[in-house]
Amino acid sequence: MNIAEQVLAGSRRALSKAITAVENEYDTAVDIMKALYPHTGRAHVIGITGAPGAGKSTLTDKLAKAYRRQGKTVGIIAIDPTSPFSGGAILGDRIRMVDLTMDEGVFIRSMGTRGSLGGLSRKTAEAVKILDAFGMDVVFVETVGVGQSEVDIVKAADTTIVVMVPGLGDDIQAIKAGILEIGDVFAINKADREGVDKLHVELDMMLDLNQEHTDWRPPVKRTVASRDEGVTELVETIGEHFEYLQTSGALTVRRRERTKNELLDLLDEEIGRKVMRHLQESGNFDNLVIQVEQREKDPYSVVREILHQVLR
Amino acid sequence: MNIAEQVLAGSRRALSKAITAVENEYDTAVDIMKALYPHTGRAHVIGITGAPGAGKSTLTDKLAKAYRRQGKTVGIIAIDPTSPFSGGAILGDRIRMVDLTMDEGVFIRSMGTRGSLGGLSRKTAEAVKILDAFGMDVVFVETVGVGQSEVDIVKAADTTIVVMVPGLGDDIQAIKAGILEIGDVFAINKADREGVDKLHVELDMMLDLNQEHTDWRPPVKRTVASRDEGVTELVETIGEHFEYLQTSGALTVRRRERTKNELLDLLDEEIGRKVMRHLQESGNFDNLVIQVEQREKDPYSVVREILHQVLR
Repeated sequence: MNIAEQVLAGSRRALSKAITAVENEYDTAVDIMKALYPHTGRAHVIGITGAPGAGKSTLTDKLAKAYRRQGKTVGIIAIDPTSPFSGGAILGDRIRMVDLTMDEGVFIRSMGTRGSLGGLSRKTAEAVKILDAFGMDVVFVETVGVGQSEVDIVKAADTTIVVMVPGLGDDIQAIKAGILEIGDVFAINKADREGVDKLHVELDMMLDLNQEHTDWRPPVKRTVASRDEGVTELVETIGEHFEYLQTSGALTVRRRERTKNELLDLLDEEIGRKVMRHLQESGNFDNLVIQVEQREKDPYSVVREILHQVLR
Repeated sequence: MNIAEQVLAGSRRALSKAITAVENEYDTAVDIMKALYPHTGRAHVIGITGAPGAGKSTLTDKLAKAYRRQGKTVGIIAIDPTSPFSGGAILGDRIRMVDLTMDEGVFIRSMGTRGSLGGLSRKTAEAVKILDAFGMDVVFVETVGVGQSEVDIVKAADTTIVVMVPGLGDDIQAIKAGILEIGDVFAINKADREGVDKLHVELDMMLDLNQEHTDWRPPVKRTVASRDEGVTELVETIGEHFEYLQTSGALTVRRRERTKNELLDLLDEEIGRKVMRHLQESGNFDNLVIQVEQREKDPYSVVREILHQVLR
């Protein structure tokens, strides 16, 4: 059996290998993905995002356990923040709950931002598909931060949970405003902290203002993940959102949009790869760079020249 | 005279128009940039980045005034954080110092993240070039945050200043680790706050650890921008860095690398545009999306198909 067949047969070893192949862009990756693709589309994909220190890992772990209690299998992909230059992991693998990592119904994988971030969102989406094809009922994608790259990554999700925490400064809340539009469910974690009522009220106000063209008003839930408080309620709310997606037809729209974006991303990457190969093989690119740098040519004319060479 | 000629003749109105053309991707933009390009490469481009609330705008304003006192002209491009979806500015234009905005030797422009972030870094680089061709001696690029997009944006700079502030949590410092590698000069702003010594020591330690293959060890300077303290010293340090770049030959290397990346970005964007046009004209893309969504085709085969159509 090849790796894809082994994944479909339930091998955790093959599952791990398949994700590694995608992550490192092995030659085998495309064949694996092609074989697994028809078996995808069954998992409920849940994105978890929010500022660093909001307790996303802990909350994800507790949510995973809650789903396990319902008999559901769970995949977790944790995106680690890394240096954009060195490629090394900074926080490294977070320590996950031991009883979770020992559970055969759970598979946890960290992915770093090695290489391009654009590549990361594609790789994350593929890792989600691998876990989906493997048969996981629920797949979590957990990211740190609320930047554009995180937004791209949670686009792989059916339901996105934005985790907030009381007591962060206004500056940081302002940055987060962009996140209002991607959150389907808001969790105020560490809700035993001071400022929880203020944050809750502000969040409700912003969400009411933001309410546009949709019949799903993102609910705000309080949790204290470290003490397992509010987690069952949050799982219920997530379930309600998934039901809303299914009954309203929004799931189809959302997944079609996702498919479209994934196709475009893949296309973009493949073209980029082919063009880079062309530039390397032509052997003239370094000269062009120097000519542009010395103002003998301008970048716009050079790009037009290259376009003529590569495009039909 | 066309807009480019007016910019070169010193018209502030034309300067503003040229940046607007680039920002909104007017058809005229490429011609403007082609005409201005030979006149670029003279300004000292300074990137300013750091966490929200670090006081970057105030520090930039005070630095600008210090350069004005030296008789140098100054351009400032302030990148505003906006929602990735609505496209609207959230913080809006920051209020700049009045005596700065009234000064004919200063030109300030805010740019939002309208459209793609990838596009923003290209547009920022072009706005920098416009200010450079206009004759500004110093051009600041000020960004909020320390994510990948900000890193891309400060790549337009010769000298990058990372602004830190005492009393931020460890989580945020951890995220910032990626910023160590892009900082040429570190400013601890709001240095009258508690925790300044701790941050200074930690930063020095990290920078010493990070010291690799370079003879420039990024200095750490303390400022209280709101009271104009430490600003003159910071300007001196920035000057020393520029001198180092020039005498060591690092400036040539850095700018050549920048030119190369700019060419690749531009190429990527242009190809993306052409391919999108092809997909729209072929009229078949929506069908392909549905077929992939319904698992009748897999995305990898579809992308291969499209590649055959567009590439030579």
